[in-house]
Amino acid sequence: MTFTMPELISAKREGKALTQEQLSWIVDSYTQDAVPDYQMAPFLMAVLFQGMDEAELGCWTDAMLSSGEVLDLSSSPQPKVDKHSTGGVGDKTSLPLAPLVAACGVAVPMMSGHGLGHTGGTLDKLESIPGFRTEVGIEEFAEQLEAIGIVLAGQSERLVPADRRIYALRDATGTVPSIPLIASSIMSKKLVAKEDLDGLVLDVKVGSGAFMKEIDKARELAATMVAIGRSYDVPVVAVLTAMDQPLGAEVGNANEVEESIAVLRGEGPADVVELTMALGVEMLLAAGAGDRKDAASRLTKAIASGAALEKFAEVIAAQGGDPRVIEDESLLPSAADTTVVTSQVAGTIARCDALTVGRAAVRLGAGRTEKGEKIDHGVGITLHAKVGDEVSAGAPLATVRYRSRGRLEACLAVLDEAWEFAADPQEPGALILEEVR
Amino acid sequence: MTFTMPELISAKREGKALTQEQLSWIVDSYTQDAVPDYQMAPFLMAVLFQGMDEAELGCWTDAMLSSGEVLDLSSSPQPKVDKHSTGGVGDKTSLPLAPLVAACGVAVPMMSGHGLGHTGGTLDKLESIPGFRTEVGIEEFAEQLEAIGIVLAGQSERLVPADRRIYALRDATGTVPSIPLIASSIMSKKLVAKEDLDGLVLDVKVGSGAFMKEIDKARELAATMVAIGRSYDVPVVAVLTAMDQPLGAEVGNANEVEESIAVLRGEGPADVVELTMALGVEMLLAAGAGDRKDAASRLTKAIASGAALEKFAEVIAAQGGDPRVIEDESLLPSAADTTVVTSQVAGTIARCDALTVGRAAVRLGAGRTEKGEKIDHGVGITLHAKVGDEVSAGAPLATVRYRSRGRLEACLAVLDEAWEFAADPQEPGALILEEVR
Repeated sequence: MTFTMPELISAKREGKALTQEQLSWIVDSYTQDAVPDYQMAPFLMAVLFQGMDEAELGCWTDAMLSSGEVLDLSSSPQPKVDKHSTGGVGDKTSLPLAPLVAACGVAVPMMSGHGLGHTGGTLDKLESIPGFRTEVGIEEFAEQLEAIGIVLAGQSERLVPADRRIYALRDATGTVPSIPLIASSIMSKKLVAKEDLDGLVLDVKVGSGAFMKEIDKARELAATMVAIGRSYDVPVVAVLTAMDQPLGAEVGNANEVEESIAVLRGEGPADVVELTMALGVEMLLAAGAGDRKDAASRLTKAIASGAALEKFAEVIAAQGGDPRVIEDESLLPSAADTTVVTSQVAGTIARCDALTVGRAAVRLGAGRTEKGEKIDHGVGITLHAKVGDEVSAGAPLATVRYRSRGRLEACLAVLDEAWEFAADPQEPGALILEEVR
Repeated sequence: MTFTMPELISAKREGKALTQEQLSWIVDSYTQDAVPDYQMAPFLMAVLFQGMDEAELGCWTDAMLSSGEVLDLSSSPQPKVDKHSTGGVGDKTSLPLAPLVAACGVAVPMMSGHGLGHTGGTLDKLESIPGFRTEVGIEEFAEQLEAIGIVLAGQSERLVPADRRIYALRDATGTVPSIPLIASSIMSKKLVAKEDLDGLVLDVKVGSGAFMKEIDKARELAATMVAIGRSYDVPVVAVLTAMDQPLGAEVGNANEVEESIAVLRGEGPADVVELTMALGVEMLLAAGAGDRKDAASRLTKAIASGAALEKFAEVIAAQGGDPRVIEDESLLPSAADTTVVTSQVAGTIARCDALTVGRAAVRLGAGRTEKGEKIDHGVGITLHAKVGDEVSAGAPLATVRYRSRGRLEACLAVLDEAWEFAADPQEPGALILEEVR
């Protein structure tokens, strides 16, 4: 059966539900270059306005999943659990979390994305490690998982090619903030090893620096993904977490790798450590750990013994990167110049806006504004003061590591708006908000 | 000032009003190939959902108008009035109307489009006349108007190039039924000679075969176009007319040229004649005719004297076509085979659905489903019975002129659904509904 895109776009635009045949025809034709970008993009915009019902979303996700080969991870004997974040500013949690959980004997076959809009991407951060390859072949993926219990990869042309294309197109066409499109993109990547996956933990961000600004929308996204997981018999837990201010102190690619290494050394900032531990506990529970207390104690031991940091070195080496970065941060790319942003006033920080800091980092070159744009892994922002901190006039708020003066100025013009001050003490809100399962 | 499309698409998607600078940047960049189709199409879809306010629409129309050269028609001494239809099935009115009005001494500089979706286009119909050129150069346009008082042309790369591109893109991307996009497309073509235009008469179709299915939407479109005209000091009258069943008996390109010639000979079907006369009266009034009665009598005389038909021959010859078609219809393209659709039942026709007949004609090859597709000028449908007609079982409902059996079958599968029958007498509704000025 063949269809025509103008008809299918019009049907979706009018709010009609499409059939399994129609949805898989769209995904297959687009993946095979038989439907052009100029028809796919307005279709995605129509989906953004009209949504997809549960049946449509299942068909759409399945069509994406089936657009390439499927991973067979049955050769790894351990339980297998993956994790995903919907994206935030300074959210490097996947980097310490994956080796930490792997060091506890749970296999982590992690499939991530590049940065989208003002948020960073796990792949971009990993690629700041010299030599690190995020494209991993299908056989290599299974072999590496069996050998060391961890893989940190992006989808390749063979795995979920439909998502790779749709993701890039959405970024360039203002069609990112759609719950069905976000849910299907995440779940098609995460379920590519569906046969062999024992659980999936989702970190759904809420707040100014997240795609979901309101908790209602975040709950809807979480419930949508949990439902998709259920239809594949994969247990999914979604943790809703705050993204009003950046997570941790570091924003930027090499910057965030450094902070991730600090977490694995037991030295990370409190919020990144709190989130890493909470998600780690969920992952171990999904893999069969007895209870939360037992899970937390295994994670703490893996950090204290150095096993988690060692596992990070192992996965870096396995994917062609230089594992010495865990000992010697000077091996990471780093722009030569820095400047310090200081406070004009004395007071307590009431706001350190995640979206503003994220946008400032993009202007610096740490993220992309166009499809396929090259980013600069060596630039970034280090925050010295966050919500609740008291600062005196002239105190440092942030250090900006920059490559060119033009980009620095563009960054600072935005970054200056990030902070708000109050005379009274300020309490930062809770980081971990609720769970959907 | 430069902008990025993802930002502007997102702003429109969120319902924000864009500035004059932003809108003209989009139109200019798209016309100059600096913004790709895959970004323009989702922008148009966002406009379809979020609309444009009056200020935005004025800027958008002006940017389209300014995308090419502007016509200078000041060398023609007569008053100049143009006409446009929003498109229907069997709506060939422009073909007899333009020479009829021109024969009354009013210059008609008509700028038309190709068929869009299930509706026919004036240019496609004209192009069924052997040799007829619808691309007319700018200098030639003014010269021909001065010489014979009539030009029937499409926009060229030099005139309103932005509309040409946006129109084709909308057709291929399910973004046709948007009031601001329809209004700006029509008005940018119609106002390209704004300095010298004395009036514009719009035929806004309402019903199953029109883009506007409901009268409210048709009124909104009419008022939108009248307002755009006012901002350019061009008096605009919009006549709302019924498009629930096809206009006249003929649907298809050469078929409709034949029926247009019949109207100019005083032999056309009642509905086409009624509409042609009503719109002709409005055009003569816009050109300064004393009153409706006087205008109607001038039109009647131009038909009776043969002057109107002669004017049609003149414009055909001036644009490279073979004027002998007005005497000898066998010179028009005509597919060799015909088949007759007969009624299964006896009764009164309650419905002869315009959209269904239009879709059947597209399947026959008379219209296009894809950007740039070639159409077949020699295929078409002749209706033998319309709403209110009594038919016996076995009576002919339509004759289908076809080129291939496959296309005939595809056509008939749709066409069979066009008619509904009733036992009681049926009254066809009024053709001319109301006026907006």
